Amino acid sequence: MDETSRTRRIAQEYVDRTERRDWDGLSALLDEHVVYEMPQTRERFHGRPTFLRFNQEYPGDWHLRARRVVADGRHAALWVDARVGDEAMDACVWLDLSEDGLITRVTDYWPTSYEPPADRGYPVERW
Amino acid sequence: MDETSRTRRIAQEYVDRTERRDWDGLSALLDEHVVYEMPQTRERFHGRPTFLRFNQEYPGDWHLRARRVVADGRHAALWVDARVGDEAMDACVWLDLSEDGLITRVTDYWPTSYEPPADRGYPVERW
Repeated sequence: MDETSRTRRIAQEYVDRTERRDWDGLSALLDEHVVYEMPQTRERFHGRPTFLRFNQEYPGDWHLRARRVVADGRHAALWVDARVGDEAMDACVWLDLSEDGLITRVTDYWPTSYEPPADRGYPVERW
Repeated sequence: MDETSRTRRIAQEYVDRTERRDWDGLSALLDEHVVYEMPQTRERFHGRPTFLRFNQEYPGDWHLRARRVVADGRHAALWVDARVGDEAMDACVWLDLSEDGLITRVTDYWPTSYEPPADRGYPVERW
């Protein structure tokens, strides 16, 4: 398996094992010193234990599904469909992997909905 | 050049030509029926002319730089550093390409800053 194929598989597993609350399985994908960043709140955590705890303690009956996995060498981008009850939210997740195929950095974006301008002056569909 | 290398180059050019206001060059990357979606406002535009107009009319002295390009077959993800004056914002952009290497779909996310919980109960760095 080439590097990109391995990255693609690991990125998919990252979402699937988190969704399954398979903490041992998730832990096995992470580098010991994994860095987790949320640029929207300018927060950064270090290390596998804190990373796992953040996920384990995240409130609500959340569910994750990878809508798209884009892998390129030791980088991956995940387009994630996240749901808590009836509420759906998309996440954009950037993964960095080590030479050994362990996740060394996770950068999460959680874009929220907002209202568009009243009139853009050209045809726009809304859904 | 293989498909992924072509996609990677086109994704980089997509940002660079937009930054240069090279509208003819940007147009040449787009499928005639390109679809542009912003899930945060649930807006969708169709076609090259509207796509170009949206960019041409976007207010402010904006600047774009691809921080990361992840390409995989006919999909790409762009992590973009966008600036208007002193204000910086990250964008997450998902590109779909046709067999001919034209961009058929652009999905843009513009995540905004927000305040984190006061105390997560474990060590967190802020920047």
